[in-house]
Amino acid sequence: MDVAPVLIAGRWRPADAVGSFRAENPTLGEPFGAQFPVSGWADCDAALAAAAQAAPELAALPAEQLAAFLDDFAARVEATRDAIVGMAHQETALPAKPRLDEVELPRTTGQLRQAAAAAREGTWALPTIDSKANIRSLLLPIGPVAVFGPNNFPLAFNSVSGGDFAAAIAAGNPVIAKANTSHPGTTKLLAEAAFAAVQSAGLPPAIVQLIYRTSHADGERLVADPRLGATGYTGSRGAGLALKRAADAAGKPIYLELSSINPVVILPGAIQQRGDKLAEEFTSSCLMGTGQFCTNPGLVLLLASEATERFVGGLVERFRSSAAGTLLSNRVAVSLVESIGKLQAAGATLLVGGARDTGPRASVANTLLRASGRQFIHHAEALQTEAFGNASLVVVADDVDELATVIELLEGNLTGAIYSHSGGGDDALYACLEPALRRRVGRLLNDKMPTGVAVSPAMNHGGPYPATGHPGFTAVGIPASLRRFGMLACYDNVRPERLPAALGDRNPNGRMWRSIDGAWTTADVSATGKS
Amino acid sequence: MDVAPVLIAGRWRPADAVGSFRAENPTLGEPFGAQFPVSGWADCDAALAAAAQAAPELAALPAEQLAAFLDDFAARVEATRDAIVGMAHQETALPAKPRLDEVELPRTTGQLRQAAAAAREGTWALPTIDSKANIRSLLLPIGPVAVFGPNNFPLAFNSVSGGDFAAAIAAGNPVIAKANTSHPGTTKLLAEAAFAAVQSAGLPPAIVQLIYRTSHADGERLVADPRLGATGYTGSRGAGLALKRAADAAGKPIYLELSSINPVVILPGAIQQRGDKLAEEFTSSCLMGTGQFCTNPGLVLLLASEATERFVGGLVERFRSSAAGTLLSNRVAVSLVESIGKLQAAGATLLVGGARDTGPRASVANTLLRASGRQFIHHAEALQTEAFGNASLVVVADDVDELATVIELLEGNLTGAIYSHSGGGDDALYACLEPALRRRVGRLLNDKMPTGVAVSPAMNHGGPYPATGHPGFTAVGIPASLRRFGMLACYDNVRPERLPAALGDRNPNGRMWRSIDGAWTTADVSATGKS
Repeated sequence: MDVAPVLIAGRWRPADAVGSFRAENPTLGEPFGAQFPVSGWADCDAALAAAAQAAPELAALPAEQLAAFLDDFAARVEATRDAIVGMAHQETALPAKPRLDEVELPRTTGQLRQAAAAAREGTWALPTIDSKANIRSLLLPIGPVAVFGPNNFPLAFNSVSGGDFAAAIAAGNPVIAKANTSHPGTTKLLAEAAFAAVQSAGLPPAIVQLIYRTSHADGERLVADPRLGATGYTGSRGAGLALKRAADAAGKPIYLELSSINPVVILPGAIQQRGDKLAEEFTSSCLMGTGQFCTNPGLVLLLASEATERFVGGLVERFRSSAAGTLLSNRVAVSLVESIGKLQAAGATLLVGGARDTGPRASVANTLLRASGRQFIHHAEALQTEAFGNASLVVVADDVDELATVIELLEGNLTGAIYSHSGGGDDALYACLEPALRRRVGRLLNDKMPTGVAVSPAMNHGGPYPATGHPGFTAVGIPASLRRFGMLACYDNVRPERLPAALGDRNPNGRMWRSIDGAWTTADVSATGKS
Repeated sequence: MDVAPVLIAGRWRPADAVGSFRAENPTLGEPFGAQFPVSGWADCDAALAAAAQAAPELAALPAEQLAAFLDDFAARVEATRDAIVGMAHQETALPAKPRLDEVELPRTTGQLRQAAAAAREGTWALPTIDSKANIRSLLLPIGPVAVFGPNNFPLAFNSVSGGDFAAAIAAGNPVIAKANTSHPGTTKLLAEAAFAAVQSAGLPPAIVQLIYRTSHADGERLVADPRLGATGYTGSRGAGLALKRAADAAGKPIYLELSSINPVVILPGAIQQRGDKLAEEFTSSCLMGTGQFCTNPGLVLLLASEATERFVGGLVERFRSSAAGTLLSNRVAVSLVESIGKLQAAGATLLVGGARDTGPRASVANTLLRASGRQFIHHAEALQTEAFGNASLVVVADDVDELATVIELLEGNLTGAIYSHSGGGDDALYACLEPALRRRVGRLLNDKMPTGVAVSPAMNHGGPYPATGHPGFTAVGIPASLRRFGMLACYDNVRPERLPAALGDRNPNGRMWRSIDGAWTTADVSATGKS
């Protein structure tokens, strides 16, 4: 039986496999296509050795070469878009159009090109020069980066083409990609495009490597290996925290994007003013992509009133009348039903949905649950169970104090949104609730659902634990996401000809922003501080 | 028996103590002065509760108030300098002049004032604005910060006046200071000055709190507490890693500055050119402060030659003829002798020193050990034992390959220095060795000993694990050190009147650098991007 090769040390070669698996077509509910290997430690070890050797070679290359590689890779993804989109659709059931072809693929190539531009400009590394003391610093590549991609964005967060990949490479690091096992075929196509671009650019071949799956133990060994620089992980909380324990114990940075229920607070004035519109907006955000977004609004916080009852009724109606999408896999469907069960066990009432499709398709009816503020307060942990998919929990608080207490009990989340009356009618309430919500989320939104995550320099796709492992970093947004994969490097009294170009007196490209003697500038050192 | 009070929730009050201790006068080798309490968990809990309450109040205050507090505190430290210096001298045996009075105290007040200036300007928070998408982000206060200060800088790294304290406060966070038990009296005086400044500024009183000592278990519980934002720790590796385990498991950021042996590579041309001068410079750097610097050069890497033998002979002569200083405590002396024993057990030869003073004074003879490159390669871990104090290990490699291997085996360090011929004679060797050393240290020096740590915006007092817990952060250098105590906060579509001042269209003080639409500027948004 043919098993797909892994990409290690610049060669597609058979895995040193301890097993194999196939992708599932979630629409048909059955496995299909090629066999993919489960790599043993020998593959991880070989990938680490090759990455460790490639890392200093890569770090010594001009940024332009890296940038050209990223641009070329983006072009190759576009050139093979039909195959990539087709395979991703088969493996994930996400719509080929518009989602994969018109939204996610352009986002993916856009990220690669933005990362290329950031590498070229060099500002991401925060070059800082004290010209009088002749002390200079910047972020240098941290070393080989292991990337574990999630199931829900087969292109834009793919371990071999997504945000973590682009950021790690643009920061000058080799990547060891661990495919998400729900879309190995898509990942293989992307890795083929990436590796062709590596070869075409004449870069060290081991800067892009791919394995498909390992045992949990080998994954933990990988993120803790002395040869590794850091890890980027997006996925479930359980698996992520196991990797975190291993990486932490070895002193290796690991950037995690874990679960998040993304509370949406809708204040009374907004419901009064535009309840129907908001019900539409919420339903659309919650069911988009069958609810399988990291920033899916999984918790709605409301204050009790007749208008609130009408609003909730409108949600139920919309959830019932919308067709339930196909989930990423039957495992996701099983897990969603389990999570709905946990929420019910904690006291939430099922308003609509809750059950799996009877057919082979990976699908669960659009689901809405409800709990009171008091219930939430008494079962805060269980009622924050993430129900990954097309489900959401509505919590109706009796009064403002109860609502404030609910917010105080929230875990760290990626986002939190507050809808309020556009004329200022909710402003006092906003001022009272915002500080507590602000501290618990990475991104605060006004009058907007959290599902759109713009690739903006000001974006934060991060947040307090347990949404991530560190509240200071973002996984989306360039150049900030690159800084996760840099180590701070200071040059003290180092002779001019030995400095990296970014720290020389002369601005190496005339466009790089550097902080020179306390002021950000694109000028040379001589022109600003030194005299 | 009178026991000194702790400062909790805005009040100097008796500790809920589980024991007490006294400081030691290391010159006399005996305890002296007041009793200080060992706090039980109740004190930690009370401090956490008060800090958690003060944190949002503090975060809501204008930066100017924080800055004024830091400036006033600096002035109060200067006003009580004689008492502070006198007590610190008694507790640490560090010379009152020049060290404490003329070097460390001005450095301490300078740091406080630099932190004040950084808080006023606001650039530290990396305000970033995408004017078209109306997405804006910056670093906000991370929450209450626990600071554990080291024994070796009773003022400049003191938990209630040092770099971590200044950075945490300037970033807008309350501090829970855990005194270093070797200088509790100094810490009490500094906390009194800090608290008087808090009261005078009318700040929430719990933003500065002080406990002196806890059990290890309570310390671990403190850094993992949900009410805490982050921890700054400077000290021994063992205690630091125990705290790291606890904080990591709870998802709480902890910034550690642990042991470092700070390798100094002296290339053959430099020895030929200025061997005597370098022997003098090295001896002075190594014995300064009785060797008790985080950046003390504890490892010298040389290539075998006759000139090297003369150089080492010169070091031995100087170590022998210099008076041995007093160490910070008898515990430090015991630990130093133990470490010297470990180095000997791993094969290092004692060239000079090695033994404790026979008197009560905490002192060990200036100590130099020697090992071959081959020995180092075979016992790399044991021969990197930190001998904290006036001791250093000379490693002489037979050839360049051996020297390169020695460097490849180095753990993460705060600093690494390379001395080379000023005329370029060692340049090929430098180019061959620098990349491997560069990756293993936070700060790379040329022709300069690492013991000076300038408070410069470009400084990195950090480095790869196990020198610290994360290679992306520095404990010294403003504004970068403040960023450790911030959480990234994004405002997406948030109404203008609800934005923090730093993210409004108008630059709030005309001096804050903000990245607006990809360019750093002190201008308003309207003038640069939005149109």
